[in-house]
This record gives sequence, C-alpha cells and structure tokens, in this order.
Amino acid sequence: MPRFIKKVSKKAGLSPGALVHIGKKKVEKTRIRIIDYDESQLQEKEVKEVEECFPFKEKPTVTWINIDGLHQVEIIEKIGKYFDVHPLVLEDIVNTGQRPKLEDLESYLFIVLKMLSYDEKEKEVSVEQFSFILGPNFVISFQERVGDVFNPIRERIRNAKGRIRKMGSDYLAYALMDAVVDNYFAILERLGEEIESIEEELVHNPNPETLQIIHNLKREMILLRKSVWPLREVISALERGESTLIGDSTGIYFRDVYDHTIQVIDTIETFRDMVSGMLDIYLSSVSNRMNEVMKVLTIFAAIFIPLTFIAGLYGMNFEFMPELKWHWGYFGVLAIMAAVGISLLFYFKKKRWL
Amino acid sequence: MPRFIKKVSKKAGLSPGALVHIGKKKVEKTRIRIIDYDESQLQEKEVKEVEECFPFKEKPTVTWINIDGLHQVEIIEKIGKYFDVHPLVLEDIVNTGQRPKLEDLESYLFIVLKMLSYDEKEKEVSVEQFSFILGPNFVISFQERVGDVFNPIRERIRNAKGRIRKMGSDYLAYALMDAVVDNYFAILERLGEEIESIEEELVHNPNPETLQIIHNLKREMILLRKSVWPLREVISALERGESTLIGDSTGIYFRDVYDHTIQVIDTIETFRDMVSGMLDIYLSSVSNRMNEVMKVLTIFAAIFIPLTFIAGLYGMNFEFMPELKWHWGYFGVLAIMAAVGISLLFYFKKKRWL
Amino acid sequence: MPRFIKKVSKKAGLSPGALVHIGKKKVEKTRIRIIDYDESQLQEKEVKEVEECFPFKEKPTVTWINIDGLHQVEIIEKIGKYFDVHPLVLEDIVNTGQRPKLEDLESYLFIVLKMLSYDEKEKEVSVEQFSFILGPNFVISFQERVGDVFNPIRERIRNAKGRIRKMGSDYLAYALMDAVVDNYFAILERLGEEIESIEEELVHNPNPETLQIIHNLKREMILLRKSVWPLREVISALERGESTLIGDSTGIYFRDVYDHTIQVIDTIETFRDMVSGMLDIYLSSVSNRMNEVMKVLTIFAAIFIPLTFIAGLYGMNFEFMPELKWHWGYFGVLAIMAAVGISLLFYFKKKRWL
Amino acid sequence: MPRFIKKVSKKAGLSPGALVHIGKKKVEKTRIRIIDYDESQLQEKEVKEVEECFPFKEKPTVTWINIDGLHQVEIIEKIGKYFDVHPLVLEDIVNTGQRPKLEDLESYLFIVLKMLSYDEKEKEVSVEQFSFILGPNFVISFQERVGDVFNPIRERIRNAKGRIRKMGSDYLAYALMDAVVDNYFAILERLGEEIESIEEELVHNPNPETLQIIHNLKREMILLRKSVWPLREVISALERGESTLIGDSTGIYFRDVYDHTIQVIDTIETFRDMVSGMLDIYLSSVSNRMNEVMKVLTIFAAIFIPLTFIAGLYGMNFEFMPELKWHWGYFGVLAIMAAVGISLLFYFKKKRWL
Amino acid sequence: MPRFIKKVSKKAGLSPGALVHIGKKKVEKTRIRIIDYDESQLQEKEVKEVEECFPFKEKPTVTWINIDGLHQVEIIEKIGKYFDVHPLVLEDIVNTGQRPKLEDLESYLFIVLKMLSYDEKEKEVSVEQFSFILGPNFVISFQERVGDVFNPIRERIRNAKGRIRKMGSDYLAYALMDAVVDNYFAILERLGEEIESIEEELVHNPNPETLQIIHNLKREMILLRKSVWPLREVISALERGESTLIGDSTGIYFRDVYDHTIQVIDTIETFRDMVSGMLDIYLSSVSNRMNEVMKVLTIFAAIFIPLTFIAGLYGMNFEFMPELKWHWGYFGVLAIMAAVGISLLFYFKKKRWL
Repeated sequence: MPRFIKKVSKKAGLSPGALVHIGKKKVEKTRIRIIDYDESQLQEKEVKEVEECFPFKEKPTVTWINIDGLHQVEIIEKIGKYFDVHPLVLEDIVNTGQRPKLEDLESYLFIVLKMLSYDEKEKEVSVEQFSFILGPNFVISFQERVGDVFNPIRERIRNAKGRIRKMGSDYLAYALMDAVVDNYFAILERLGEEIESIEEELVHNPNPETLQIIHNLKREMILLRKSVWPLREVISALERGESTLIGDSTGIYFRDVYDHTIQVIDTIETFRDMVSGMLDIYLSSVSNRMNEVMKVLTIFAAIFIPLTFIAGLYGMNFEFMPELKWHWGYFGVLAIMAAVGISLLFYFKKKRWL
Repeated sequence: MPRFIKKVSKKAGLSPGALVHIGKKKVEKTRIRIIDYDESQLQEKEVKEVEECFPFKEKPTVTWINIDGLHQVEIIEKIGKYFDVHPLVLEDIVNTGQRPKLEDLESYLFIVLKMLSYDEKEKEVSVEQFSFILGPNFVISFQERVGDVFNPIRERIRNAKGRIRKMGSDYLAYALMDAVVDNYFAILERLGEEIESIEEELVHNPNPETLQIIHNLKREMILLRKSVWPLREVISALERGESTLIGDSTGIYFRDVYDHTIQVIDTIETFRDMVSGMLDIYLSSVSNRMNEVMKVLTIFAAIFIPLTFIAGLYGMNFEFMPELKWHWGYFGVLAIMAAVGISLLFYFKKKRWL
Repeated sequence: MPRFIKKVSKKAGLSPGALVHIGKKKVEKTRIRIIDYDESQLQEKEVKEVEECFPFKEKPTVTWINIDGLHQVEIIEKIGKYFDVHPLVLEDIVNTGQRPKLEDLESYLFIVLKMLSYDEKEKEVSVEQFSFILGPNFVISFQERVGDVFNPIRERIRNAKGRIRKMGSDYLAYALMDAVVDNYFAILERLGEEIESIEEELVHNPNPETLQIIHNLKREMILLRKSVWPLREVISALERGESTLIGDSTGIYFRDVYDHTIQVIDTIETFRDMVSGMLDIYLSSVSNRMNEVMKVLTIFAAIFIPLTFIAGLYGMNFEFMPELKWHWGYFGVLAIMAAVGISLLFYFKKKRWL
Repeated sequence: MPRFIKKVSKKAGLSPGALVHIGKKKVEKTRIRIIDYDESQLQEKEVKEVEECFPFKEKPTVTWINIDGLHQVEIIEKIGKYFDVHPLVLEDIVNTGQRPKLEDLESYLFIVLKMLSYDEKEKEVSVEQFSFILGPNFVISFQERVGDVFNPIRERIRNAKGRIRKMGSDYLAYALMDAVVDNYFAILERLGEEIESIEEELVHNPNPETLQIIHNLKREMILLRKSVWPLREVISALERGESTLIGDSTGIYFRDVYDHTIQVIDTIETFRDMVSGMLDIYLSSVSNRMNEVMKVLTIFAAIFIPLTFIAGLYGMNFEFMPELKWHWGYFGVLAIMAAVGISLLFYFKKKRWL
Repeated sequence: MPRFIKKVSKKAGLSPGALVHIGKKKVEKTRIRIIDYDESQLQEKEVKEVEECFPFKEKPTVTWINIDGLHQVEIIEKIGKYFDVHPLVLEDIVNTGQRPKLEDLESYLFIVLKMLSYDEKEKEVSVEQFSFILGPNFVISFQERVGDVFNPIRERIRNAKGRIRKMGSDYLAYALMDAVVDNYFAILERLGEEIESIEEELVHNPNPETLQIIHNLKREMILLRKSVWPLREVISALERGESTLIGDSTGIYFRDVYDHTIQVIDTIETFRDMVSGMLDIYLSSVSNRMNEVMKVLTIFAAIFIPLTFIAGLYGMNFEFMPELKWHWGYFGVLAIMAAVGISLLFYFKKKRWL
C-alpha cells in the first residue's frame, strides 16, 4: 500500500513551502558528491558540508551536484536558498509522492522522475523519487538512496568517453534521464521473464498461488504505468525545446529518450494485455479441471446406482419371488449387472462424456 | 442515494435566480465570521447581523467572510445584493448539487469545490459543498456546516506565519483550495487503509460481507471521482492566469495545487483498478473454496458407492449363492471392500483430485 | 424497441423536404396557442386556424406560438412557408427521430430537444421530441402532445414574475430549455428511487425479476444518455454566443443551463456505473445462494452415505458373520453409526464447510 | 469472413494504379446508363460502348453516368482516361475493399461509400462498394451490381419533382449519398426487429441457438460500424464546403445527411449496447435454469437418502433386533419415514430452497 | 516473449550512439546490393566492400542501397559516417526493438517499419525491423535478413514498368513502404483463415486446445497492433508533405498507402473484436456441454434413488410385514417401481429438463 499512496497527512495544515520529508528514510546520512568538468579538466569530490558546493554556482564549467538522502531537510534548504530555488520546488524534492513532472522556472528547470528497481526477494518493483534542477551550468540531483544507475555516466565523464565532456549541463540532464529510462527496460525484461514463467505454470499446473502472482503482476503494471506514463509529456516538452536551457544540438537526444519512453509505455500496455489474458486462461483452466473431476465422478456414481438398485431388488424379502429359487439366478443377476454396467460405459463413451 | 443525486424537484418551475436551499440543513443557525488583515494589522470577529460585513467591501485590506450554513437564504441574498453577485451565482451557492466549477464574472470569480469527510461510523465518505467568491480584496466563502479544515489557515493569518499576510485575496483563495485538496489526501489515506485491510481478509477469509464492502468501496470511488475530476479543469483555468484577479506571483501556487489534484485523481484511478482487481480475486477465491468442498465431498461419495453396491450384492436373497456358504466369505468381502476403497483413494490421489 | 429506432422507412425515396410525420400520433387534433407579450402588455389566445398566427410575425413584441401535435403536416407546412423556414427544418420538426441539435440558419435558430417523462405504469422513460424556432422576436415551438412542463413559464409570463417580461425571445428560448432540463432532474430522481429500492431487494431477496429490472434500468440509461448527451454541444454553442439572435445578457443564463446539463450527464454516468455494479452483485449473490444450498445438501448426503454402507454391510446374508450373533451387536452398530455421523459433522464444521 | 477482409493478395507486387478487380463478380456484363438533364430538358439512355459517354463531358447540362459491374476493368480504364481520373482513384474503384472516404483532387471529388443490404435468407447484412466521381457538371457512379436504391432519384429526375432538375451535379451527389444513408435506416429497422424477436425468445426459451444468433448480431454490428463510422468524416468534410465543387446552397443538404449519419451511428451504438446486454441476460438465465434443475434434483435426492438409510437399518440381519419382533414395527417405521420426509420438505420450503 | 520485448540490457550504460546490435543474428554475412537508375539507364550489382557504395552518393541518378543483416555493425558505421548519418539514427538501425517512426533530420529522412511474416510451422507472426534512410537521390535500406518482399519492385525497376524509373528517390521510398503494407494484408488474410477455421471448430468440437489457439490469436493481434498502429502517424506525416524531400506529385501515393494502413488497422480491430467474441462463445459452449452432462446424470440418479428406496423397504426384516406374504407382492412392487420410474421420466420431460 505505501507504494500506492504516501502518508502526507503529517504535512496537513503547514504553510506551502514548508519542508517535510514524506517517505521512508532510506540512508543513514545524506551524501553529497560533486563532479565538475569541462572539455579539458575534471574535478571530483565528496563533501561533508553543503557550503562546499556554493563556489561551483558561478564557475563556467559544468557541475553535477548529487545528493543521496532526503531526510536532512536543512541541507536541501541551504542549497535551495543559495541556488535561488523556489520553496515549492524544494517542497516537491523532499515530498517523494510526486508524479513525474517538469517545471520551467525560467532561470532553471525542475524535473521529477521515478526510479524503479526490482526487489528480487519480495518479487515486486520498488519506486524511488529522483529529481534534479537543471541550471545554465549545473545540475543538482536528489535521490532517496545511494544508487548505481548513474555510475556509467560518471565513468564516461572520467574517461572523457563520448560527447559528454564536450557538451553542457543540458546534455548531462539528458544522460541522467536516459540512464533512468534505460533502467526501465531492465525492469521490464525482469517482469517479462516472470510473465513467461507464469505462463508455463498456467498450462501445466494452475493453482491458487498462480492467481495471486497474476494479481501481483497486475499491480506492478499499475505501479509502472503510474510511474512512466506522465514522463511522456515531460520529455516531449523538453524535446520541443521550449526552454532556452536546452540547446538545439541536445534536442535530438531528448527525442531519442522520448522514443524509448514510448517503447516502455508500449511494452507496459502489452504486458497489461497479456496479464489480463492470463487471468482468463487461469480461470477457465481451473474451471476446466474442476469440471473434468466432477464429470468423471458423477459418471462413476451413475453407473453404480442402477446396479445397487438391482441388488436391492433381490434383497427384498417377499415370500414369492420366483427368481430367488432359480439355480442360476444369482449368476444371472451378476451377468445382467455386468451387462448394464458395460452398456452404460459404452453409452457415456459414445456421448463423449468420458 | 442522496449522496448521488440531490432532490431538486422542489425547485421545479421557479424562475432562475430564485434562492432555494437544496440539501440537508446541517447547522442550526448560520454563523458569519470575518477576518480582515494586511501585513501590519489584523481584525477578527464573529457577527450577528449580515450588515456588519458591508463596510469591509471597500476597505483596501484583505477580508475573508466565512459563512457556515446555507439554509437561511435571506442572509445569502442580502450579502449577494450588497456585493453585486449575480442571482444565478447565489442560486448555485445554496443549491448544493453543483459540480466543482469556476465562473469568471469579470469583477469577481465564483468557485465551487467539494469538501470530503470520512464518516467513521457509516464507513463512507460524505460530501459537502464549499464555494467562495473571490473579489479584488475580499473572499466570501460558503460552507454547509462548521468545519475545522480551515483552522490552520486562520492560525497562519493570526501568527503572520508564511507569506499569507503579505499577499492579496488571490493567495487566500489559493490557501483555501490547497486546504481542501490536502484534505482529499487524508480521505485517500483512510480509504487506502480500508483497502489494505480488505485485502488481508480476501486472502484469509472471504465472505459475502467482504463483497458488500468491496461494492461500497467501488461506490466511494465513483463519488470521489465525481467530486475531484472537474476540479482539474477549474484549477488549470486559474493557473493559466486568465483572470486579472489572480496575480502573477500567485500562479505558481495554483500550479502546485494543480499538481496535487492530479496526484489525487491518479490515486483514485489506482484505487479503482485495485478495487476491481479485488472483486475478481474475491469471486475466484469464493468459487475456489466451493469447488474444493464439492470435490472432496463428491470423492467421498464416489468411494462409498461401489462399497455399498458390494454390500447390496451379498444382501440378495438368492437360494443358491455359493459365497454365502463359505466360512471366510464375510471376511473376504470385507477385505475386498477395503481393497476397493483404498485403490480408489490412491487413484484419486494420483489423479491429483484429492 | 420503437423507443430506440423510429420507422423512417415510409419516407424512403421521397425528395428531401417532403413532410412526413415519423412517430406515433399522440393527440387527436393539433392545438395552437399564442402568447404575445412585452414589458407592459400581454395577449394570450388559442387559435383554430394557423393563419391567425401570421400577423404576429412583424409585431415588435415577443410572440410564443406553441403547436401541440405534429401529424397534421399541412399546418406545419403553412406556418413554415409564412415564416420562411427551410423545408429541411420542417422535415426535421415532423420526423421525431432527431437527436438534440442546433441549426443556425442566420435569420433564425432551429433547436431540437428531447422531452422525457416517466411512465409509472410501464416503469419506463418515454421520449418526446420538442423543437422550436427562435426568430428575432418570436419562438415557434412544436411538441408531440400537450404537456404541462411549460405551464410555470406561462404563469411567470402572465404574472410578470422574474425577468421574463423584460427580456426578448432569446430569454424565452432559454426558459423553455431550462424547463426541459429541469424536468430531466425529476426523471433522474425517479430512477434514483428505483435504483435504491432495487438495491434493498438485491441484498434481501435476489430473484430473476430483479435481473429483469436491472436490465431495464440499464436500457433506460442508454435511452437517457442518447437523449441528453448531444444537448451538451447544443447549449455550449448557444452559450458561446455565436449567433446574433442570442443577446449578451442572456449568455450567462445559457451557461447555467449548460451546467445543469453537465450535472444531468454526470448523474446518468454515475447511475450507469451503479447499475452495472448491481448486476455484479446480483450475479454473485445468486451464485452464492445456490452454492450454499448445494453445499448443505451435499454434506447432508455425505453423512448418510457411510451410514447406509454400514447398514448394507450387516444386511449381507453370509452364513458366518460373527457380529450378527452378538447380543449387543445391533445396538453396537447403532452406536458406531451415531459416532461416525457425529464425527463427520464435527469434521465438516471444523473445515468451515457448514 | 470474406465480408471482413478482401483477398487482395492477387494484387501483391503490381505497380500502383494497376487495375485489378478485388471482390466477387456480381453481374454478368457491365451496364452503363446515362441520364443527362437540366431544368428544361432530359435525355436518358443505356449505352453499349463506353465511348458513347464521352460527348457528355463537355456538355453544360448535368450528366449522371452510372456503371453497374466492376470486373470489366478495361471499361473503367477507358472512362478514367477520358475523364482525366488519377490511376490510383481508378484502382480504388475496382478494389472493393476500400473504407468510406473522400478524396479531393481539385478538378473532381472521389467519394467511396458502402451500400448495405439485408440478406433475408442468410439473415446477414451484405456490403457492396458504391463510389462516384463528382465533376463540375457530371457524376460518374460505380456499383458492384444493379441495385434499386437509386430508382426514386431517377423517378424524381424524370418527373422534375423537387429541386433536383434545377440544381447542379453537387445536388445529384447529395441525392445519391442521401439514398445510401436512408437505406441504412431500413437495415437498422430490420436488425431492430430481429433484436426484438430475440429478446422475446431470451425470456421465454433461451437455447444455444439464441446464443449463436446474438453472436451473429454482434458481428453484424461490427460490420455496420466499420461501414458507417468513417462516413461521418467524409460528409463532415463535404458540409464544411472546402471544395469549390460543392455550391453554397447545397451545403445545408449535406448537413442534413450528416445528421442522418450521426443518427445511424448512434443507433448502431445503442444496438451494440443492447446486444451485449442480451448476452449477459442469456448467460445468466441459462445458468439460472440449470441451477433450478440441479437444486430440485439435489433436494429430491436429499429427502430419499435418509429414508433409504432407515430401510437399510432394518434390513440388517442381527439376531437380536427387538424392533423387528414388534407387531407394529413395520408400520411404525413407515410412519417415521413419512415424518422424516415431510419434515425435510418443510425445512427446505422454509429455507426457500424449493 | 522475445517477440514482445528485446533484450536491451546488454546496452545499459553505454554512451548514446554506441552501436550494439539488439536482436537475433538472422543471416550469416551482411549482403549489400545496389541498384542505380534513372529514366534512361540502370546499373545493378552486389558489392563485397561497403566502400563501393560511396561513389553513388553524389551521382544524380537514384540509388537504392539495400543492406541485409545488421550484426556487422562496423559496416553500418562506415556507411553512416560517409553518408553523414547521425549516430543516434545508426543506433536505431541496429537496435531492432524500435517502433515504427519517422525522423526528419533535414538533409535526410529516417523511417522505421515493421516487416511481418507468418511462420506456418509455429503458427505465429514473426516481426522483423525494416528501416531506411531517404536522401535527395538515394535510399539506404536495412533489413534483418534477406527477404523477397521487395523483389517485385526490383522487377519493375529492371523492366521500367510503371512510373518508377521516371520518378525520384521519394517514389522509391513510397514503393518500399507500399510493399511492406501490402504484405500486411497477406498476413491478415492468413490470420483470417485461421479465425474462420477456429470458428468451425468452436461450434462442432470445443476443447481446451481451441482455447489455447484463441489465446494465441489474441496475442498475435496485440503484436500486429503494436507493429502497425504507429505507422499511421508516420505515413500521415509523410503525406502532409512537411519534408522537402517528398515531391508534390508523390504526395497522392503516400495518401494511398495511408488509406491502406487505415484499412489494416481497421481489420486488426475487427479481428480483435471477433477473437474476443470467440472466447465468449467458447466459454459458454464448454459450460453448456458440461451442464448437459451433469443434468442428464443427475436426472438419471434422481430416478433410481426412489426405486432403490422401495427395494430397501421390502428388504427390511420385520416379522410382521403383510405385503411380503402376498402372492403377487413382488410383482406388484415391480409394477409400482416401473410406474414411479416412468412418471418421473414424464415429469422431467414435461419440465423440459431432459
């Protein structure tokens, strides 16, 4: 349930812009990492005090300030104040119940994404909020916990691989979003495998747990949909290049992420269709099995009932029952019973009931 | 039912603008409270006569006139006449069957919202109409009963906390709407808990009451949807700043409420999906249980039927039945019966019917 | 069925504009009533000959010509010719299978509405076509039968109540439409009551008639939807004030009718959701009852089957059956039977099957 | 199936504009009929050679060339070449798998419609393609077979009834489309009757054939929808008068056809809703009947099972069974059996199971 | 499953534009074929080295470079570099998980399509990515394997049939897309046949395999929809002629492909409706069969149960049972049994249970 609605009630009645962290505390201590680079130089450090970030604001190089952990709101507040971030934006950073969105505040863009990860133990997708502020020469990103999704980007910056060192902060923003969306594919692959394994089970051994799993998959799909669907609009707005913070040459990259997002949404919809088809299959195969059992057993009973009747007949105690005196009477009745039983069997076979 | 359609028939045939209170009378006496403030001063009072509000119309300070109770239509009429409110607007204020809407009448805005509260006893959501008129320097709000949702706003005004004392009547309007929307989250959390508890029950002990509760939840969702969905458009229109009554600096706040409204709608849709998934689970688990019972009992019968037949066989009264004379005949038959019974059990086990 | 499709086949092959009355003849004789008024004077009469209407065309006062009964097409034709009405419009007036629509023919507007009434005997909604032509200073309205929905408007004109005598023909058109839409609320209330009473029955005594009633309600919803949905567009077009025939000051009144129409549509959608939820409840509660019956009876049988087997056992005629000779054998067997029966009962109770 | 997809595979690999007739050959020989008229004169003839049509191209009078039968593609080709018709248009004429569409090729319009007819024997709707080219003073229409839908138009031209002789080729195009759409109403009436008759059957005697018929009706609805839905757009484009070939005074007539098309679509949607409601009713009434049978029979068995047990009891052969010696033992047991049977009957009655 | 989601995880973390082939390797060696033509001349060759293509870039004639096989990414890279193709486009060419799309990069267009083929053995549709780059005088097309869909186009170029040799590269692009879309019809025909054959089976012999096949068909529909739906937008954009690379005279041809695409989508939707209708039919006919069996067997039992009771009655061992002494007692009881059995049969017949 906490995956579907966040407890925001502790915020009720506070004035807007009041910073309250909504969500579970996922790291012990907030960690601040800075990477500052341009084409020719690179500086990377982890800082203890938030004030160490401030000098980078005016530097012409691209600066990426990454903050892991949102429960120490005073850090967010300080950095927000120094970088002139609107209080409502800060509020959205620490309130992790946001949906993906883009806010254009002229001097900077604020973007919220959902980071997904697959919890192998619980067999469910967990959602984390990832938001960042894109300024003219800096990106300040906020994560709920330390993640390794962005490590390849750090690698590329360090090794000056690809275009990244030659381009501005908008390209860095693109790289971050691309990493998040690429990660969605990994989640979808994982879910795809699970769907596949369930399908096998459906055909060979449907049981109530299968139903539970199908139901869970359905929920994962609801969660994914909720996390990814609004992203479409966000990236589409970026791609249209309405903000001056996004350079012309970066536009095509955002278009690429846009395509990937559409692919993700497409796949989610396909999975939804498949999962609801599986539910149909499950229900009909369960009822099929049940019917088979009931049918065979009912036929079983139907054959013995007339036989028992015949036996009952000759168990009557009438004084004058000529058959009882016959020498072959007993064996004759046995023969008749066998005949009746076998004809019924044949009849049911012929009717295709067996 | 009264939650879904209001008895408006008592109004039929009246000319438009005729004031008739549609809805239940929820307070004994209409209560009028005034808060008048600007950055430096604050005046708060509860008035007996509606005429006491009139002087505030021309004062440059921000005035919030809050009216609890709508059945004394003559009060609404007087205040409407003095503040130049269109008769059709007054009609909408007292007719509580309105859907959320915004009407721009140039010199003032008229906004209708739905206030929700969760009735713990009936376990259902009850809906109340909250409407207000936003003028250049005043807000006149109308509630069906005395509520405590706006108390934190009053507190903030009194204590000059946050921006509220420095801003105009548009910010007050924002604060009211924000309080209403924040309250939706509380309702959703409450419903979320109920959904969660039902899910537990579904798995461990599905019974017809569960079905009734699921059905009720479905209805609550219909009601919520009806109350919140149109709000989206209302706030979106405010945010686009088409009215001159909404200052530029307030726009971003309305955007924030807009985001919250979308989150509320999202959550309602998610809950709807979940509740209808629960219905599927319920139906299939009930039929599962039933099938289990029927299967075991049928197998039970199927084992005894052939045994009874054998017993019937040797209950026949034929004179010449050699087995009856055998010394071990009886025990032999008992042994055969045991053998038949046990083989059938094994067969059913093997077939996975048991 | 005739409520869902009109027999238009008798018109096939005729040239467009040929006047053929499609629909049932609902009154014996067409009745023409004229009300002519301005702020200071009022004239009201019922005329025998259609020609008596003609002088009012050029009079500056507002004239409302109301025609009840559409089967005497020659009357419609005459009035149409004199008032310069396009033949296709006349065709639409007498062909009662139209959907609500607005046609702007520059010199006049043609508006078609559906008037609903609830037939208490048949327990169904019946639909009647109401159309009118709005000219610069006249309204010519056409009804299939004499109705009393517009009587309050006549009263208001006679008594000069409200604004109506001071305003032009556009306000009269508004008043007519408002009366029709207000009438929808009455129908919805009536249906709401029926839904409520069915819900009671659903819980306490579901039977096949309930199903039939639910099905009928569903159909009524389809009919209502068909009748009301297109009205939205019609009124929205009027409200936008695209026609010069609609004065500026009347716009807000049309906006009010628009709001009411949206409320009606909302309520219809809510009712649809509720009725289809009721179908689910019905089906599941019927199957529940059935399951209960079957379960109890099956358990009943399951207890007696082993007992009968034991009785059969000692009904066998073997010569050597030691138990038969025992003095307490019979009572012992009775005791065993009681023990078996009671243990089974306990077992089923424990398994929660009983 | 051929009603749902045409065999176009024989066309695969041909260059675009290659004329291949797709569809069944429905007439023996292509038939060409010409009607040429203006307000004062009329000429009507059936021609053997396609070349006889050519002189009419330049005549100022309105010419309607009607071609029945599409398999002689060389005729289509010749006429197409002379009248400057684009090869792709000719291809669409003979490929009868088109959906309704409008193509504006500046010097002429090309319009494709679907003509429906109800096959009383097969009880299904059959679809035929009707397309025509509207030039400044001519209409060339193409039908798959000789039909009588347009005979009333021919009559009106011959008798100079209505406006048709006074107006241009655009009005003729309107008349053709109007005839096709009017014909849809006839089909819908026919289907409406069938729905009505099935509903009767549903209530009084549901059987598997009913299901088959409902399923067939569902398919007819799919087919109709496919044939009519795109027409909406076609006529809406014509009505907006974007082409210079459509005169201003003809616009209102196209608006009339547009209204009819919307009515047809509305009715199809209503029928769809009704048919799927019927499926629900069918399924639930079948399961209801089944349940009734099973219930009565099970109760039947449940009453006899304890009675048979009692009989079995006194069929046991114990030496010491005191009741067997009693003089009234037998009648006492009979009385007990009657009592048990009757109490059970009462019990089941009271439980409302019977 | 691999048909629904591609393993893109091996790409995770690479910088954008890095060429990694996503998809199965379907040919041994990449094959490059060149056709170069204008109205008067034609040159056709298969090249070993990719560099042999380069001279054609500047030639004024139309050049079609066709590349079969995407796993040798270095070839794609070389050709991309020489023809100035954006790295992200190259990435999309080799990543076969793209959805149909159009990218306008000013100096060239990049178009992705899905090529379908029906695998007769697996009875499923397989999907292959076909993409091409349309430059001012060249088309570079990329296929996953060697296909024969485009052979008729090669034939038409060789034989100078139709317009193709007279037109530019835009017409060649049209011809390729047309061939792909025409191929969809073939797939749909094949699926249509399968649906038809399943329908036969549904009526005469429904079995669990039928269900499996219906389920598979449903999936094929999901796959087709995913492959074709986005094509609509792609072609619509081409048809609107927004790119200067598409000549005016080619526009009408793209409009033709657009119509075909809409027809394909229409047919897919119709098939979807039909397949889901088939599922309903299947489920209801299976449950019908089951019901029939159960009903007959239950009636069977219901007739014998009272008879067995009567037999049990006279099997009791009471000393004083007058009937047992009667001479015709036995035959009388037999007669009574026959009477009871026959009356029950008649009763059940009358009740229409048999």
